[in-house]
Amino acid sequence: MRAALLFGAGDVRVENIPDPTLQRPTDAIVRVVLSCICGSDLHDYRGLPAQQQGLQMGHEMLGLVEETGSAVTGLKRGDLVVASWTAQDNTCEFCRAGNQVNCVHGEMLSAAQAELVRIPQASGTLRPLPVTSEAEAPLLRSLLTLADVYGTGHHAAKRAGVGAGDTVTVIGDGAVGLLAVLAARRLGAEQIVLMGRHRARTDLGREFGATDVVAERGEEGVAAVRDLTAGGSAKVIEAVGHRPAYDQAVGVVRPGGVISRVGVPQYEEAPIGVSSLFFRGITLTGGPAPVRSYMDELLPGILDGTVNPGRVFDSSIGLTDVPKGYAAMDARESLKVLVEL
Amino acid sequence: MRAALLFGAGDVRVENIPDPTLQRPTDAIVRVVLSCICGSDLHDYRGLPAQQQGLQMGHEMLGLVEETGSAVTGLKRGDLVVASWTAQDNTCEFCRAGNQVNCVHGEMLSAAQAELVRIPQASGTLRPLPVTSEAEAPLLRSLLTLADVYGTGHHAAKRAGVGAGDTVTVIGDGAVGLLAVLAARRLGAEQIVLMGRHRARTDLGREFGATDVVAERGEEGVAAVRDLTAGGSAKVIEAVGHRPAYDQAVGVVRPGGVISRVGVPQYEEAPIGVSSLFFRGITLTGGPAPVRSYMDELLPGILDGTVNPGRVFDSSIGLTDVPKGYAAMDARESLKVLVEL
Repeated sequence: MRAALLFGAGDVRVENIPDPTLQRPTDAIVRVVLSCICGSDLHDYRGLPAQQQGLQMGHEMLGLVEETGSAVTGLKRGDLVVASWTAQDNTCEFCRAGNQVNCVHGEMLSAAQAELVRIPQASGTLRPLPVTSEAEAPLLRSLLTLADVYGTGHHAAKRAGVGAGDTVTVIGDGAVGLLAVLAARRLGAEQIVLMGRHRARTDLGREFGATDVVAERGEEGVAAVRDLTAGGSAKVIEAVGHRPAYDQAVGVVRPGGVISRVGVPQYEEAPIGVSSLFFRGITLTGGPAPVRSYMDELLPGILDGTVNPGRVFDSSIGLTDVPKGYAAMDARESLKVLVEL
Repeated sequence: MRAALLFGAGDVRVENIPDPTLQRPTDAIVRVVLSCICGSDLHDYRGLPAQQQGLQMGHEMLGLVEETGSAVTGLKRGDLVVASWTAQDNTCEFCRAGNQVNCVHGEMLSAAQAELVRIPQASGTLRPLPVTSEAEAPLLRSLLTLADVYGTGHHAAKRAGVGAGDTVTVIGDGAVGLLAVLAARRLGAEQIVLMGRHRARTDLGREFGATDVVAERGEEGVAAVRDLTAGGSAKVIEAVGHRPAYDQAVGVVRPGGVISRVGVPQYEEAPIGVSSLFFRGITLTGGPAPVRSYMDELLPGILDGTVNPGRVFDSSIGLTDVPKGYAAMDARESLKVLVEL
């Protein structure tokens, strides 16, 4: 089969490699219909040392079940499924608590930019969809976002405790930030301030429900948000992962408020003492999203067209062009690249 | 009147100073019956540069209303009251949200180790008690803990989300840590691991509800707690404030769990990235306790003798001996010193 492989920073190639095979009775093999490139794939794309053997890439995928292991239940060949970006049994203590990312059988998918993919813990990882692969393209694109970005935006809003009438500030206009806007709106937020400076993206953010856009960064950005929110935002979503975004979150959060992080932190230490979090009683929460636990809740709104999270895909390529897709996202020419097989 | 004054590190004196007077219509003057020394007073006791003019000390107090300003309601001369350690109007947006520490009229009490004390925002700061100053000594001592330490221990447990059947680890065997144990037990926690190495204190912790005591620190302590809790504690209360205690909290918390800090952080930066908090989806919360908001809930259990938080006072002195009280707490000879006037 053909698959995208990363051989080092900036070096993605599409090559022929052996088809994946069932390795455990809990595995399934899925034929990929739609995959995509994630902002987090760019960390490796930018920093991986040169490799003799390429690494398979991609953790977002919608496809057709090809083959199932003997222990797989609830799935059969030909089912259209979406995979969560982490594999999980969906039955352990952590999964039952809605924390699938820390499943005792958990692992991250990492080979979804390919024609076929082996899915561990298939019964817990794959969610059958009530449509076929012949469904309309916009619907399939939105269903693909359940694999990661929509679920992650929703997780950010849930962890922030967003509810009816709330004021929420979303830091970052990437796909996750924009879908956090959509998720916050869906959960009833009244005022949603989006911090971002890419006009096309913040325009989509407005369509998703942002009531205000702040393009400024640093102290200026903080002052603008505090002004718009009468002294600070009770709920803040940090969807970037870089240290300045965290500092911005600390700057705009209201006393007693919550900072919910879903951008993967590219720093380890940061201020959490008296003047940053403690005295004002700020809660810091978030983490990687257990998207599997949200699929049942988010699916109906996609199916009935209430929300269209798939709009974050602003370009579409075939598998052959995956290297160009990485380059476009790296250059910020594309918000999120869809891969159609 | 006589009052305790701090003139620099290790230099507490009891001197005659002018009686406080009403400065605003919202003030009251209270004659102190019981005061005490707080672990947080020791930060100044250890580090304050030498001063010409001494600073008044103390933020915990139970006493009799002596005089009220023209705008004070709900209080009259002779009422026995307990003050919360922060003054607040108890009516602003933040107070209504249970975040009295960030009241728009908030300030910290700082003159309660004295015969008389001026209380700002008296209607919001003082809570009348349904007993007289002739009540039994143990009861009055327990009522005094509503001013700070019991409310703070309770805040720690509430912010950690402690409920029936929970496993909770409490780091620190100071008065707040021990009362966090009591509060967690009261809220239904089933397993309570107390990390502390002062035998007399951890013994009191056991009486308050600790099911396990871990005296080890560092990696050894973390391993012991993880062993006792089958892999980590879903709720962790950090009641120390020093950086090693935070690191211990990160070490013992279970994936998806909560670290609730009430020890005033003596550090600003600390690890909060992928490997410490983010990947495991840990929530970091806590802060200074809005004790005023908990008094109505905590009072009945004290009045009916269900709980005896006043047991944290292991020595009692008069105002004259306050300098000795500081020295005893500084040397860890005393857990918490009561000052009887």
